[in-house]
Amino acid sequence: MQNFDYQTPTRLIFGEGVISNLPDVMKPIGRKILLTYGGGSIKKIGLYDKVKELLTDFDIYELSDIQPNPKYDPSVLDGVRICKENNIDVILAVGGGSVLDCSKAIAAGALYEGDTWDLISGKAFAKAALPIVDVLTLAATGSEYDCGGVISRTETNDKIGYMDSHLFPVCSILDPTYTFTVSKKQTAAGCADAMNHVMEQYFTEDTTLLNDGFCEAELKSLMYNTIAALLDPNDYRARAELMLCCTYGCNGILALGNSPSGWPCHGIEHALSAYYDITHGEGLAIITPRWMKHILNDKTLPRFVKYGVNVFNIDDTLDEYEIAQRAIDETYNFFESIGIPMHLRDVGIDESRIDEMAHHIAVNEGLENAYAPLTEKDIADIIRASL
Amino acid sequence: MQNFDYQTPTRLIFGEGVISNLPDVMKPIGRKILLTYGGGSIKKIGLYDKVKELLTDFDIYELSDIQPNPKYDPSVLDGVRICKENNIDVILAVGGGSVLDCSKAIAAGALYEGDTWDLISGKAFAKAALPIVDVLTLAATGSEYDCGGVISRTETNDKIGYMDSHLFPVCSILDPTYTFTVSKKQTAAGCADAMNHVMEQYFTEDTTLLNDGFCEAELKSLMYNTIAALLDPNDYRARAELMLCCTYGCNGILALGNSPSGWPCHGIEHALSAYYDITHGEGLAIITPRWMKHILNDKTLPRFVKYGVNVFNIDDTLDEYEIAQRAIDETYNFFESIGIPMHLRDVGIDESRIDEMAHHIAVNEGLENAYAPLTEKDIADIIRASL
Repeated sequence: MQNFDYQTPTRLIFGEGVISNLPDVMKPIGRKILLTYGGGSIKKIGLYDKVKELLTDFDIYELSDIQPNPKYDPSVLDGVRICKENNIDVILAVGGGSVLDCSKAIAAGALYEGDTWDLISGKAFAKAALPIVDVLTLAATGSEYDCGGVISRTETNDKIGYMDSHLFPVCSILDPTYTFTVSKKQTAAGCADAMNHVMEQYFTEDTTLLNDGFCEAELKSLMYNTIAALLDPNDYRARAELMLCCTYGCNGILALGNSPSGWPCHGIEHALSAYYDITHGEGLAIITPRWMKHILNDKTLPRFVKYGVNVFNIDDTLDEYEIAQRAIDETYNFFESIGIPMHLRDVGIDESRIDEMAHHIAVNEGLENAYAPLTEKDIADIIRASL
Repeated sequence: MQNFDYQTPTRLIFGEGVISNLPDVMKPIGRKILLTYGGGSIKKIGLYDKVKELLTDFDIYELSDIQPNPKYDPSVLDGVRICKENNIDVILAVGGGSVLDCSKAIAAGALYEGDTWDLISGKAFAKAALPIVDVLTLAATGSEYDCGGVISRTETNDKIGYMDSHLFPVCSILDPTYTFTVSKKQTAAGCADAMNHVMEQYFTEDTTLLNDGFCEAELKSLMYNTIAALLDPNDYRARAELMLCCTYGCNGILALGNSPSGWPCHGIEHALSAYYDITHGEGLAIITPRWMKHILNDKTLPRFVKYGVNVFNIDDTLDEYEIAQRAIDETYNFFESIGIPMHLRDVGIDESRIDEMAHHIAVNEGLENAYAPLTEKDIADIIRASL
């Protein structure tokens, strides 16, 4: 078991109707709010109007049109400019993980004198950040309960994940009914994203019985409740449990004391979506079983056996490689069953830039130190097997 | 799934040697420290000297001799007086759950003008509290990661648990090696305490697949690692995993969204240890299987079946009542196997005050609203069956 230093100070207010707490949450933080959101789905479900109605006593500035795989230019840059010009007190992110990730970069950039990219790229560290409150509308990334974000910079094909302890949301308002209108495609992609967050922490050298059990519970709950939510998008219990499951994905609580894994699938997928702007969860679902197949060997076998037996209930008297292979097949089949396109060609990626992407990943993601170390050739092989 | 409002801001610094962080943790909080501890075990293991050596730049006042089932008089009262007379900035609790619980009451009382008992009894609520840092030496209560405490008042046979969001420790320093010298008796009692914390959240009306999995992982890890720690008290991995397991016991994270259960075993046990000053974890271990047997009925049956199948791996094709009965027997047998005296007579409790205790519990603990409601007669029957 590894030493660790852990803290997640974010307050979670969870359940149907909890948006009514918003004014009380905002009051002690500040009057001047930058309201951030995406393409307008929050207007369709009436959430935009509800937020404005609850916050009539506040001064609200707005940044809209934040895209999936949120962009440094224009979203982050515009947000930082609005904050600096108007002395914004607090950012209110209303949306999914992309809106929240973008808002975190803005929160850090607003109190930084240099170029905000310095903070994302790790050239500098934030000494402070504006407080962030969020109202979540998509169960997926876990950004509502962690201090990290992922930002894309189109011109350099960079998609960089970074963490900063100043960037925990002060409060996340989690009402599962806001996810009722999430499409089947996005529900499935959110599930795949969250499942991969868990797998990235489960497949590593040094784990504990406790953490393995937490991760297995997450995976089983995510699969069961995603199927339920796809069958009935208004199934409150399913949407609620999915929302809670996703919340734990990236703040570390599922794996305190585990050895670092290197998060290889994320490392690979970030390049795919940086080059092709695909849906992150779909990219992960496509890569995951191919990565599993690639790293299966005598050393990693026991992890796959545990995964297969405890998550998919595979007969533990079978040959261990047989269990592992079935577990990988079950993983693939589950993603396919929830409607995810399981080939990169299905999402618009062909052979042409594989070597370029593999090189970019090998140089930037440190996967030679992953649980199962990956060379540039390994990475290219995994992507090629995913075509 | 129930709505909830959750936050645990405490920082956890975990692992061998992490005590070296203590000066950096204390510096931003304050110079005048009240160091609280128990009967001297921290001197035997060299921790007292280590803390003093690390904090030579601080002014240290001391409160020692805090007892198990910590007492309002003299410990809490003395601590509050020392804080008020000396303008203490921060309390540093070094010990187990009793030292920490006592320190929390002191932290609240130090900034309260009235009688500290008002805050414990719920007559008033703290508006502020001194910050608390702890160095844990016993894996059991979870007080290092929650905002509650339990204080006993001998003259009235009261043992009251209370929670106040001001009382989360700022930082808990968790070094598993400090638990190497914990006796077999206390190791087993700590395990029983932590297991019961989990069961009190698992046995309830409304749960989720996720929370059930978290709880089952906790129970399996606690059992496995307690046996390992009893076989080899210096088994770092076992002691470390036990310490982490216990940390999650009472802050709610294992059961976010579950319906309230009423914590019936704790309600009953608090009276036992208030009247007889027994070891809390032993009292819980004795009560638990008798409480289970008492509440087993058609309504509670599915919970016991799930518990038996998932925690004890009982054949799920058996008759459901057979599974439930075996699960209860396994619970009893496990506690007995780790050396816990499994009858109240073994810990000095006889028939004489059962009705008085049952009345006290019925009046004060609200168990008529528990998951399986308990009348005064039910409570007396459970205690009598435990003799």
